[in-house]
Amino acid sequence: MRPDDANIAGNVHGGTILKMIEEAGAIISTRHCNSQAGEPCVAALARVERTDFLSPMCIGEVANVSAEITYTSRHSVEVQVNVMSENILTGAKKLTNKATLWYVPLSLKNVNKVLEVPPIQYTRKEQEDEGKKRYEEQKLDRLETKQRNGDVIFPIINPDRQTKEPHTVGYSQSSLIHLVGPSDCTLLGFVHGGVTMKLMDEVAGIVAARHCKTNIVTASVDAINFHEKIKKGCVITISGRMTFTSNKSMEIEVFVDADPFVDEPRERYRAVSAFFTYVSLSKEGKPLPVPQLLTETEDEKRRFEEGKGRYLQTKAKRQAQMQQAAQQ
Amino acid sequence: MRPDDANIAGNVHGGTILKMIEEAGAIISTRHCNSQAGEPCVAALARVERTDFLSPMCIGEVANVSAEITYTSRHSVEVQVNVMSENILTGAKKLTNKATLWYVPLSLKNVNKVLEVPPIQYTRKEQEDEGKKRYEEQKLDRLETKQRNGDVIFPIINPDRQTKEPHTVGYSQSSLIHLVGPSDCTLLGFVHGGVTMKLMDEVAGIVAARHCKTNIVTASVDAINFHEKIKKGCVITISGRMTFTSNKSMEIEVFVDADPFVDEPRERYRAVSAFFTYVSLSKEGKPLPVPQLLTETEDEKRRFEEGKGRYLQTKAKRQAQMQQAAQQ
Amino acid sequence: MRPDDANIAGNVHGGTILKMIEEAGAIISTRHCNSQAGEPCVAALARVERTDFLSPMCIGEVANVSAEITYTSRHSVEVQVNVMSENILTGAKKLTNKATLWYVPLSLKNVNKVLEVPPIQYTRKEQEDEGKKRYEEQKLDRLETKQRNGDVIFPIINPDRQTKEPHTVGYSQSSLIHLVGPSDCTLLGFVHGGVTMKLMDEVAGIVAARHCKTNIVTASVDAINFHEKIKKGCVITISGRMTFTSNKSMEIEVFVDADPFVDEPRERYRAVSAFFTYVSLSKEGKPLPVPQLLTETEDEKRRFEEGKGRYLQTKAKRQAQMQQAAQQ
Repeated sequence: MRPDDANIAGNVHGGTILKMIEEAGAIISTRHCNSQAGEPCVAALARVERTDFLSPMCIGEVANVSAEITYTSRHSVEVQVNVMSENILTGAKKLTNKATLWYVPLSLKNVNKVLEVPPIQYTRKEQEDEGKKRYEEQKLDRLETKQRNGDVIFPIINPDRQTKEPHTVGYSQSSLIHLVGPSDCTLLGFVHGGVTMKLMDEVAGIVAARHCKTNIVTASVDAINFHEKIKKGCVITISGRMTFTSNKSMEIEVFVDADPFVDEPRERYRAVSAFFTYVSLSKEGKPLPVPQLLTETEDEKRRFEEGKGRYLQTKAKRQAQMQQAAQQ
Repeated sequence: MRPDDANIAGNVHGGTILKMIEEAGAIISTRHCNSQAGEPCVAALARVERTDFLSPMCIGEVANVSAEITYTSRHSVEVQVNVMSENILTGAKKLTNKATLWYVPLSLKNVNKVLEVPPIQYTRKEQEDEGKKRYEEQKLDRLETKQRNGDVIFPIINPDRQTKEPHTVGYSQSSLIHLVGPSDCTLLGFVHGGVTMKLMDEVAGIVAARHCKTNIVTASVDAINFHEKIKKGCVITISGRMTFTSNKSMEIEVFVDADPFVDEPRERYRAVSAFFTYVSLSKEGKPLPVPQLLTETEDEKRRFEEGKGRYLQTKAKRQAQMQQAAQQ
Repeated sequence: MRPDDANIAGNVHGGTILKMIEEAGAIISTRHCNSQAGEPCVAALARVERTDFLSPMCIGEVANVSAEITYTSRHSVEVQVNVMSENILTGAKKLTNKATLWYVPLSLKNVNKVLEVPPIQYTRKEQEDEGKKRYEEQKLDRLETKQRNGDVIFPIINPDRQTKEPHTVGYSQSSLIHLVGPSDCTLLGFVHGGVTMKLMDEVAGIVAARHCKTNIVTASVDAINFHEKIKKGCVITISGRMTFTSNKSMEIEVFVDADPFVDEPRERYRAVSAFFTYVSLSKEGKPLPVPQLLTETEDEKRRFEEGKGRYLQTKAKRQAQMQQAAQQ
C-alpha cells in the first residue's frame, strides 16, 4: 500500500480495497467461466453483498487478497474474497474484509449475450443448498432495486453549498465527474465494477469529511447492484449526499449516472447506487462522536428515517450474530 | 489531492491543476457540441489563455473545479474554468485558478473535419460582444504564433550540464521523453491537451529547481496554442530552458516536439511551446530572491531581453488592473 | 495487464514486468528479514541477475508472480521470482520470466546500518553449497562494477539528434528526467529498485524504436547492481545509447544519474547502469532484421566491440546449456 492509496492519516481508502477485491473476483470468475471449451467470455460484476471493513489497513502494509468460488447457478458465479492486511515488519496479520460478489459471463463476441456457467463441485450437499438460498435472496433483491431504480427521480444535487449551514445535507453533498478511459475498462470495453466502487468511495469520503471535519474511514458498504454497463468514452457523474447519522456513524447515499454523450443517442441513465457508512476517528484511531445531520426538507427527513431503519436493522442483525457466536 | 500530485513541500504541481482544468473544459465542450442531433464529435483543445496560480493547493485538500461555456463562434467554444482549493477539515476555501480555454469540435468519423458548434444563449447582449472581441483577439494571436512556429529553429539543448557553471542557461536546461500511451489520449487517439501541459510543467519545474535549488512553485503560464495534434504511439520530447529571471521570478521556455516514429514517415515536428513563470519559496512559504540567470551566448542575451519585455508588460497590466479595481 | 502497461502492439513493457518482479522480491525478503524479533528493517535491492524475457505478455492476460527465498548469507537474501502469463480465456499459461534478486536488510531507524539475515533451512546440503557459490560470484561482480563505476566518465549524451544520420549512435540516443515522488519509494524514503528498472526499460525501448522504427520488445537485461540509494525528492536522469547490433538484436546501455538538488549539498552521482537487449518484431510477432548500428567515434567503435563480446559470450553460454539439457 502506497501513500496515494491512503488518506493523510495513513489509512488506506476503502475504495482502494474494494477495487482490489473486485479485481480478484473478476479474474477468478472469468477464468472459471472459460474453463470449458465454448464461447470465450468475460465475467461482469452484477452485485456485491454488504461488506464490512473490519480493521484499517495502513501505508506500507501488504494486502493479501484471496478469492474462492462458492456457488454457481446457470448464469452466475458467487465469489468469496478475503482481504488480510500484513505488516511485513512485525508479521502481524489482520482480516480487514470479507466480501461476496456475483458475476455474470458475457460473450466476448456479443456483449448482450449471457453464457452458461460450468458448475462447480461441492464437497458437502449443504454447501450447494446454502448457496442456492443466497442466490435466490440476491436475485430477489436485484429485481426489487431494479424496479425501484426505474422510478428514480434524479437527485437535484445543489452545488450552491456556500450558502448552506454546517451539518445540513446541502452543506456536505458533493459530486465528481470522470471521463472513462481505456485503463478503467475490461476487455469488453466496459468499466470494471471496482473502478466504479473506488470512485463512489472517494465521493462518500469527501461528503463525510465535509460533515465532520475529522479523519474519516469507510466502515461498511451495503449491497450494490450493477444493473447497467458503463462504456468507454462515457462521462460519469458520481454524487453523494448524507442521509443519516447515528452517534458514531454517518450513512452516505452515492449515485453513479452515465452520459453516453458521444456515439450513442441514449439519455443519461442511473448506473449504480449504494449506501456507504463512515466513522470519524481521532488521531489515536478511536471513534469520535459525529455531529447530527440537520434535515430541512420533507425528503431529507424521510431519508433520515429510512437510514435509521437500516441502521437499527444492521445493529440488530449483528447482535443476533454475536449471541449466536457466543452460544456456540 | 494525493502525495503524488505534489512536490516534497506538499504544494500541488501546477501541471496537476492544469490537467484537471483541461479535463473539465474538454468534458463540457464535448457535451455541448454533441447537444444537438448531428455528427458525433470530440472537442479538441486549441488554446489556453494566460493563467495565474493565485494561491497554492496542498496535499489533502479537495479541488473544486467548475466550468462554464462563455462564448461560441461558428467553429469554437470558449470555456471558463475556476478552481477552488478546499480544506475540508477547516472548511477554508481559496480561489486558486481562473482559466479560459478554446476548443474546436472534430468529427469522430473524420478527425480532420471541424464541425459546427451549436450557439449558446446570452443573458445580455454585451456578453456576446465581449466574447466576440476575445474570440477575434485569440484568433489573431493563434495565427501569429503559427507563423512564428513555422520559422522556428529547433533549440539545441545541450545536456552536457556537468561542465556548466551554476546559474547559466546550460546548467539548468532539461528534457524528458514520453511515450504516448492510451490513457494520455481522447477517444480520437490524440493526446489530451492537459496531459501535454502537465508534462510541460514538470520539465519547467525541474529547470527552476535546478537553477535555484529551493522549493519552487508555478506562478503563471502564458497563452498556449495547440497547432498540431499528437497521436498515440508518438514519442514526445519536452525540453525546457530558462530565459529570464527577475528578483523574485524565473521565466522558462518549454517546447514539445513529436516523433511519429512507427507508422508514419513524417518528420519530427514542433507541437506546442509556452513560457512558464516560477517563484522560489522558503519553508514558510514566503517568496525568496532568485539567483540571476547568467547569459553567455548572443541568443541567450536576446532571449533574456525578450523575457524582460514580457515581464514588464505583465507587471504594467497587473498594476493597471489594480488601479482600475481601486477606483471602482 | 491493462492498455497502459503495454505498447501499441499490445505487448506488455519489459519494465512493467521487472517492476512486478522486484515488488514480489521486496515483500518476501522484507518479511523474512523481520521474521525474528530484532530491529525492524526494510529489504533494499542490491542486485538483479541477468534476466531473459522468454515469451511476450499481452493486454488482458493475468500475470502470476511467485517468489521464493533460495539462499541467505549473513547480510543478504537471494530471491527467485517466476512470472507466468495466463490467458484466462483460453487457460493457456506460459513462463515469461525467471529472475534472481539479491536484497540487503537496512535498519528502519538507521538507514546506513545493514542488519543480519535470519538463516533459512535447506532441504538438501547441495542447495546451500550452490547458493554459496552464487553468492560469492555475485559479490565479486558487485565489487568489480563498483570499482569500475568509481572511474566512470559521465556520458555526454548529445541531444542534437536532428542533425544526425539515421542508424548512428547519436540519432537514437535519448534521455528522460523524473522527479522522485512518494509512490516511487519504500518506507525508508528510497526509490524501489523496480521503479528504477521500469524507467530504464522505458528509455531503452525508445532508443530501440528510434533506431529501427518498428515494434520492439525487451529480450533480456544483464545483471544490474544497485550501489547507491536514490532519495525521495531527487531528480533522476535516465539516459540510453545503443552500443551494439547483431542481425536480430540491439544492445542499449542505460545510465541512471541522481541530482540531490534541494536539501543536500552533494554532487550528481551515478546510481545504476545496465545493458538491455531488444528485438524488433513484425506485425505477426516474428523477429525482424535490425539495421546495423553506424559507429563514428573511437569510443563508439570500442563499445561496439565490447557489446559484440558480451553477445558472443551469451550465445555460447546458451548453446552450452542447450547441449547440456539435450544430454540429460
